[in-house]
Amino acid sequence: MTAHSDHPRPAVLGQNQYGKEECRVVRITRDGDTHHVKDLSVSVALRGDMDEVHLSGSNATVLPTDTTKNTVFAFAKEYGVESAEQFGIHLARHFVTSQPAIHRARIRVEEYAWERIASAGTASGADGAEGTGHSFVRKGQEVRTAQITYDGSSWEVVSGLKDLVVMNSTGSEFQGFAKDRYTTLQETRDRILATEVAARWRYSWSGGEEPPPQWDLSYRQAREHILRAFAETYSRSLQQTLYQMGSRVIEHRPEIEEIRFSLPNKHHFLVDLEPFGLGNDNEVYFAADRPYGLIEATMLRDGAEPRIPADPATL
Amino acid sequence: MTAHSDHPRPAVLGQNQYGKEECRVVRITRDGDTHHVKDLSVSVALRGDMDEVHLSGSNATVLPTDTTKNTVFAFAKEYGVESAEQFGIHLARHFVTSQPAIHRARIRVEEYAWERIASAGTASGADGAEGTGHSFVRKGQEVRTAQITYDGSSWEVVSGLKDLVVMNSTGSEFQGFAKDRYTTLQETRDRILATEVAARWRYSWSGGEEPPPQWDLSYRQAREHILRAFAETYSRSLQQTLYQMGSRVIEHRPEIEEIRFSLPNKHHFLVDLEPFGLGNDNEVYFAADRPYGLIEATMLRDGAEPRIPADPATL
Amino acid sequence: MTAHSDHPRPAVLGQNQYGKEECRVVRITRDGDTHHVKDLSVSVALRGDMDEVHLSGSNATVLPTDTTKNTVFAFAKEYGVESAEQFGIHLARHFVTSQPAIHRARIRVEEYAWERIASAGTASGADGAEGTGHSFVRKGQEVRTAQITYDGSSWEVVSGLKDLVVMNSTGSEFQGFAKDRYTTLQETRDRILATEVAARWRYSWSGGEEPPPQWDLSYRQAREHILRAFAETYSRSLQQTLYQMGSRVIEHRPEIEEIRFSLPNKHHFLVDLEPFGLGNDNEVYFAADRPYGLIEATMLRDGAEPRIPADPATL
Amino acid sequence: MTAHSDHPRPAVLGQNQYGKEECRVVRITRDGDTHHVKDLSVSVALRGDMDEVHLSGSNATVLPTDTTKNTVFAFAKEYGVESAEQFGIHLARHFVTSQPAIHRARIRVEEYAWERIASAGTASGADGAEGTGHSFVRKGQEVRTAQITYDGSSWEVVSGLKDLVVMNSTGSEFQGFAKDRYTTLQETRDRILATEVAARWRYSWSGGEEPPPQWDLSYRQAREHILRAFAETYSRSLQQTLYQMGSRVIEHRPEIEEIRFSLPNKHHFLVDLEPFGLGNDNEVYFAADRPYGLIEATMLRDGAEPRIPADPATL
Repeated sequence: MTAHSDHPRPAVLGQNQYGKEECRVVRITRDGDTHHVKDLSVSVALRGDMDEVHLSGSNATVLPTDTTKNTVFAFAKEYGVESAEQFGIHLARHFVTSQPAIHRARIRVEEYAWERIASAGTASGADGAEGTGHSFVRKGQEVRTAQITYDGSSWEVVSGLKDLVVMNSTGSEFQGFAKDRYTTLQETRDRILATEVAARWRYSWSGGEEPPPQWDLSYRQAREHILRAFAETYSRSLQQTLYQMGSRVIEHRPEIEEIRFSLPNKHHFLVDLEPFGLGNDNEVYFAADRPYGLIEATMLRDGAEPRIPADPATL
Repeated sequence: MTAHSDHPRPAVLGQNQYGKEECRVVRITRDGDTHHVKDLSVSVALRGDMDEVHLSGSNATVLPTDTTKNTVFAFAKEYGVESAEQFGIHLARHFVTSQPAIHRARIRVEEYAWERIASAGTASGADGAEGTGHSFVRKGQEVRTAQITYDGSSWEVVSGLKDLVVMNSTGSEFQGFAKDRYTTLQETRDRILATEVAARWRYSWSGGEEPPPQWDLSYRQAREHILRAFAETYSRSLQQTLYQMGSRVIEHRPEIEEIRFSLPNKHHFLVDLEPFGLGNDNEVYFAADRPYGLIEATMLRDGAEPRIPADPATL
Repeated sequence: MTAHSDHPRPAVLGQNQYGKEECRVVRITRDGDTHHVKDLSVSVALRGDMDEVHLSGSNATVLPTDTTKNTVFAFAKEYGVESAEQFGIHLARHFVTSQPAIHRARIRVEEYAWERIASAGTASGADGAEGTGHSFVRKGQEVRTAQITYDGSSWEVVSGLKDLVVMNSTGSEFQGFAKDRYTTLQETRDRILATEVAARWRYSWSGGEEPPPQWDLSYRQAREHILRAFAETYSRSLQQTLYQMGSRVIEHRPEIEEIRFSLPNKHHFLVDLEPFGLGNDNEVYFAADRPYGLIEATMLRDGAEPRIPADPATL
Repeated sequence: MTAHSDHPRPAVLGQNQYGKEECRVVRITRDGDTHHVKDLSVSVALRGDMDEVHLSGSNATVLPTDTTKNTVFAFAKEYGVESAEQFGIHLARHFVTSQPAIHRARIRVEEYAWERIASAGTASGADGAEGTGHSFVRKGQEVRTAQITYDGSSWEVVSGLKDLVVMNSTGSEFQGFAKDRYTTLQETRDRILATEVAARWRYSWSGGEEPPPQWDLSYRQAREHILRAFAETYSRSLQQTLYQMGSRVIEHRPEIEEIRFSLPNKHHFLVDLEPFGLGNDNEVYFAADRPYGLIEATMLRDGAEPRIPADPATL
């Protein structure tokens, strides 16, 4: 239908937002010869009175994304980076309170951890600098995430982690499942269970008089509970393991009232070695790439409202 | 499960789903010596009565993801692949109607396009097969996407595309924007505008007596309108271009009632050549990777309800 | 440097080089309202008198990689980008002839192709700019590559392509192979043959009085011969197909005297549908990711010296 | 094959090889309730009498790559995986000694490290299995690499690592460099130096009566020397740091006689905060993606022959 005329009704503008993605900021803090590193990727998404820029192209209410990028770097200097969450709070408050047209700001942060390199000696540099206080190796395990949203009155903080790959080499079974005409899978009482944990948890804190959580402590504890639950659960399904991970966090961390997991089932298939006259008593596995299972669920504190959205790609 | 405190209240299970991701199925249909290729990545996500598998590990209601994978391959044989959407409809209907515990199925498809290789001659094979009817080169431009959801009573189909990279080398400006203390960006009346289009559009069709849209025709037309709107819009902002792309689709395709875009602003910075005694009259640009702008919006037919979720990563 | 033992013999410095990788330069040329785009990633590697920078840290002979980056952008203005090869020749000559300490320069280019967006209409912009002359969509198929090396006296140009994915849905068999105790593969007379072509070809041109090849024409022709050979060869092995592709280029393009291919065998496994009571007459395939076969070989014009190195990762 | 011209001379077949890439094998060894994990990606490349498969398509000398894959899995059972190097030696010997047509085998291994998850408690599973002995988290730092080559008479083992990201937040300068008309870089006496170490080292061991090195010990020690040299070197250039890393390995590990590095200079640019009225005393950096510097060099024990090839992409 190519009717450009006959007064077609124009499309209505719905939800919209804009911002700058993945500002890679590294903040060094010097404590004498001992340096501290914060290594972040910061993304900013802004909402507000943006009808005109879509309809007529007028940018009068649009703070350039280049400016939001500048603000990220400037705030790393002005406020430092105490934690990903605290840094995001500074940024979100700034955009909403300083720009009349902006009604909501969402800051997302990825944080990459670094460890100090152990060093026995001293550098040979002209300035006699010690090697160890300023030398780091990237930890390279999970990525810490934080998402801070502010609408001018209340706060929402969703922290999390991703890329944390774990495996149980036994203590996992899968049986008693539903079967239909297309089922060929054999039941098993001993399998590898492996996944790459992506978790996001929402704090009950919403600002006001209430003091904020201790973000770093809470992160470390949530991560620890997730790992321990994975290790300590005899698993009849990845769903059961997921629930154990989530419920531990809810039970032990009162500041967290909702947690959502996205767990790929990284299949490890026992290789059939019989054609070669060999047995395989859960010793040799093929680690497959695709397809993979995907298990997703939210756990909530009793009475809490679910607010962490599922990934729309899989919702 | 280990209980660490006095009668902690267990966590409540919220939204959950499971399935198999990225089944890579290639379906060949032979029409004499002329072959046709459908190349898909199919993902299945199922919801239903899944409390027990989370709480106790009982798998009685769980159709294994391995079975959903088998079903994808079997249906490629039984039904063929007329279009990504039609294939997804077969699959979604099957899971919901055949498994009592499954109340909703969502099928997502990525489709990779192939073109025939032109060939003047004839192959030298013993079988004398013609080269051209079965030889293909992957098109390698956009990926076509489709998401089909069925809950036993109504259907939702969201089609789309991603990875379609476009550029206007002029006909784009950015000025008159809001400024604050962190603004350093200069206004410009002539810049490169480049983006990688990700679009998802929702059809009004929801099953029942209504005949479904012509999926392939609708896809080609929506893609064409998006490209033309990009080419034909003099752009004062990427938001304006986005709105033009969406409103053209809404205006010209009555079967579509909602469309959402996610458009990274792929910055091309004019290189300062003055230090080398050279001018740069919009000739030499540096194509930057990160950070990048990100513009997202939904356009709706008047009266339609917004149902395509924003990406939660940026919501 | 710290000495940990009695007079250890220091390590001897071997082959070394340095440079800047992946300068993303986009060059726009305006021919009235019709624009032309060259979109390149340019990498520079330099060799020469670099012992001191390794041994003592003296940078006296080191032209900064930042300078090589600047030079790429400046030359895009000064010389334009006639072809990837010609652009690399300008750069390589510059570094070797202008820096006494640099004895060899190697320029590598990746080029991304763009097509014009068809447009019936005229833009609505205030300036009345036509949409079609400056609007492009990235082709997104193969990446064109070029590597230009100059040592002050002679030139070597190796052009190529990568990421070109091709498939024959029949006309391929695999049988009569060697077998041992670990062989389980069944012979087949009809299979899918798919690969992602990476090819590099070396021109006989080495500078001097000889005119250089017509780079763009030669590229198009080599690509065409590769595609046609793939389509027209009845294949008993991927090695045979590879040889046909290479020998066609050598036979038909006298300016090329060596070509090397790296061809992953992208396995498409026929899915066993018997458990579901279904046949599968070469209709439904699973496209596997890993592991994959890898076939590599060089073809030479009779008498030519092999000079394209194998990938050391697989050599 | 179609002949397009008068008796064209056919192309001559040069260096060629084939094999299977990226067999993902996970080997579990149970020591009571304590499990041990080896997680490898194994690739096989074979050379030999392969003219006919290229020229006529006869596969008589071709051991299928499917068979080489099977062999990897079978050997994981038959020999276990003591180390990446030892596993590769078993495989390489097998292919060369069992297949008359195969004259050289090269095995490449990537190894992914896992750590145990600390756990206080005991799993609640029906079988009473302890959680901690079989629960692992992927370390996620560097990837260990090994390449084993055997031609029937002598061995070459090149071990290494990649993806090891390191940073010095001070103790690095860059000044006194060569300048030309395109140089704009300012000299600096205090910068961040960051790189992602890729190193490959060759052992002098070539088989025969000589006992092989202790592969795991040698790996740990080489890694340690590289990290310490990075930390302890006051750096006037990344080349100098590279040389220190390599020479430490050569000096302290007599079993290693050659080492090659490929070190991207991961630029961290000090952000100019002056427009915002802020100073920046080496506190806030922008971590750039592209372009990046690339420094490559080989260090040799005095008298050793260089045999680790440079990456042909950058050679």
